[in-house]
Amino acid sequence: MIIDFRVRPPYGSFLNAVPYKDLVRTEFVCNRMGMHLPEAARQKSVEMMLAEMDAAGITKAIIPARKTNPNYGIVDNDDVQHFLETYPERFIGFMGVDPLEGDTALEEIVQRVVNGRFTGVIMEVGMLSTPLYADDERIWPVYQLCEEKKIPVILMNGANAGPDVSYSNPISIDHIAVKFPQLKIVISHGGWPWVTEMLHVAWRRPNVYVSPDMYMVNFPGWQDYVTAANYVLRDRFLFGTAYPFVPFEEGVAYFKNCGILEDRLPDLFYNNAARLLGL
Amino acid sequence: MIIDFRVRPPYGSFLNAVPYKDLVRTEFVCNRMGMHLPEAARQKSVEMMLAEMDAAGITKAIIPARKTNPNYGIVDNDDVQHFLETYPERFIGFMGVDPLEGDTALEEIVQRVVNGRFTGVIMEVGMLSTPLYADDERIWPVYQLCEEKKIPVILMNGANAGPDVSYSNPISIDHIAVKFPQLKIVISHGGWPWVTEMLHVAWRRPNVYVSPDMYMVNFPGWQDYVTAANYVLRDRFLFGTAYPFVPFEEGVAYFKNCGILEDRLPDLFYNNAARLLGL
Amino acid sequence: MIIDFRVRPPYGSFLNAVPYKDLVRTEFVCNRMGMHLPEAARQKSVEMMLAEMDAAGITKAIIPARKTNPNYGIVDNDDVQHFLETYPERFIGFMGVDPLEGDTALEEIVQRVVNGRFTGVIMEVGMLSTPLYADDERIWPVYQLCEEKKIPVILMNGANAGPDVSYSNPISIDHIAVKFPQLKIVISHGGWPWVTEMLHVAWRRPNVYVSPDMYMVNFPGWQDYVTAANYVLRDRFLFGTAYPFVPFEEGVAYFKNCGILEDRLPDLFYNNAARLLGL
Repeated sequence: MIIDFRVRPPYGSFLNAVPYKDLVRTEFVCNRMGMHLPEAARQKSVEMMLAEMDAAGITKAIIPARKTNPNYGIVDNDDVQHFLETYPERFIGFMGVDPLEGDTALEEIVQRVVNGRFTGVIMEVGMLSTPLYADDERIWPVYQLCEEKKIPVILMNGANAGPDVSYSNPISIDHIAVKFPQLKIVISHGGWPWVTEMLHVAWRRPNVYVSPDMYMVNFPGWQDYVTAANYVLRDRFLFGTAYPFVPFEEGVAYFKNCGILEDRLPDLFYNNAARLLGL
Repeated sequence: MIIDFRVRPPYGSFLNAVPYKDLVRTEFVCNRMGMHLPEAARQKSVEMMLAEMDAAGITKAIIPARKTNPNYGIVDNDDVQHFLETYPERFIGFMGVDPLEGDTALEEIVQRVVNGRFTGVIMEVGMLSTPLYADDERIWPVYQLCEEKKIPVILMNGANAGPDVSYSNPISIDHIAVKFPQLKIVISHGGWPWVTEMLHVAWRRPNVYVSPDMYMVNFPGWQDYVTAANYVLRDRFLFGTAYPFVPFEEGVAYFKNCGILEDRLPDLFYNNAARLLGL
Repeated sequence: MIIDFRVRPPYGSFLNAVPYKDLVRTEFVCNRMGMHLPEAARQKSVEMMLAEMDAAGITKAIIPARKTNPNYGIVDNDDVQHFLETYPERFIGFMGVDPLEGDTALEEIVQRVVNGRFTGVIMEVGMLSTPLYADDERIWPVYQLCEEKKIPVILMNGANAGPDVSYSNPISIDHIAVKFPQLKIVISHGGWPWVTEMLHVAWRRPNVYVSPDMYMVNFPGWQDYVTAANYVLRDRFLFGTAYPFVPFEEGVAYFKNCGILEDRLPDLFYNNAARLLGL
């Protein structure tokens, strides 16, 4: 049983977001990591993607919507919701939230998560039309609501998470994790390239989970993620592919063979995510 | 012959500081590093600790007092002094200093180090009731006195060294090392998680010594510490366990087997510390 | 065929710059990296250096002038030009520019690069009498001219690149690379010690090339450079020795044996530099 913490299916408005819109670039990125563009991505087929998941042993996947500057390609919450309804057992949805929408954002969270099909919230605050750092006070009402309602929050805080490399600096996570100690926070893209700094923040703040996903696949710093998955963060390290950037089978094989100790693999692939999500 | 640069014995006010007060947490931390809680810590027995030191070949150890925000657990200078008097050959004391005490601090340094039993000064300035960065001007009088009197200073600048991850950023060390070029500075916790940045500052500033102690034991970045101990910092890299977090025998074995070249081990375990302390 | 991206020959005003002026220190640095002082450096013989290049298979080398605070040792552009004229096939010159000279700097670039023998511009802006960060607006006119005229720029942005470790933080490179997207920028010293952060900026900004040169030779973080050379930056990673700090033969052997995949070596040693320079 494997839970993949970041999957974008070739479906609905995902097809207008960068990974599927510019397949040439996506294949280039795959290749630079030593991976190959998934055939289901090339053919934009959800059915093939499901077969690829089966072949890799991936039983569930987190689907993140996206509500950012439209240049990055909005992934509509309604689309994701429809996808969840079509495949109710297989996928877990995180709704896209723009915290600058204020009360509207809070109301949509209540509607879609508390009373709806979504499990959590994802924010990519460095990619808003007004880029924010993750500890910006304008985001606090969202954090507060999610803390109260026990809603897990994914923050995409790594790599191209904002206009410059300072936006992925995990100091912002350090601040909010201590400010909202009951809020469960998952760091998508794992704070890369601030690898050791991110791992420190997570070690120090027990409500922070780390999912480097594609940035662990032959990106500089991968050895440090391996150390964390084996030792100090063994109970808060999550597997993810950022599909279609990492194909399922190659991704699972990579994580199995990169140096993570055999007895840690069940936690990495399933237990940590299941505990976090209350499965 | 081995010198351990950070040991907290189960004695006096050490028993009220976090490592001994919350043994459940300490054992959890040990285990996360792949280590085991020392039996002497569990039983809070100094005699057993001495036997553990013998078994590991540790001939001398640095005992740091602590004068910080009381929440972290004050370790009284008088207590450490009494411990030094009880075991005069085996332990070397660094007195805890709160630089915000002003002249009182300076006078106590003269009394306890220049005219007393202590060998050096330790400051944990990010953990004061008013957290400071290590280059704060309010600390300069202490640095100046220690430079003049040739008193080595330990700065705990790594990991939970302050309210957020910026407090362990070694840029503050870069500033003071060049401002007080004759001052010998030991960085306890090795600047972790700013590993390469810390190692650069030490390489550049010949008055800086690095002792990652427990943060080299299966913490992300440990490979970079190994590289430094083997090459550019081979004469300024110090061994430490942060006992009771790393047990003596397991710690010595770890440092021996983590990739440090055979011919560097005498410097790491003894010569560098002996030269620094004028033994 | 090998192109070395940073070589200082024992010639003219190079002899007054630190590497040749203080050979005791240079030998110390060599040894700390596990290398040996080149014999040609010891004897200050250009002819011997050419023979050392031959023996190592280095066919071309980039020679950087230096126009900084005189304390670091000015390397005169006229000297380098004379050297280029003496060995026209073997060396490629980058003229030293002080951007604070304003129009004079721009005119000299036109004269020496556009209409002269030099191929590119090198700036070491943290080492000016008024130290600058690489994104300082006072440097923009130089970047603009070089972008317009398709002149590659080397920025020495790593290690002792300024008064403190913040000067090598690649956030400044992130800013200018996006501001001048057609400007080809080579980061000499590879952003060390901000290794993963630098590699991220280069991965994100396709006009940035990375040459860690000596800071890849047994310096902490070298494994992350290897990962980048093998994967995401395989087409923008450059070989360099920073001669005389790394001898040619030992340097080539080190890069061949440090873990870079066999089929990446031609790109590392030649193709990437040749493409960048339009050879």
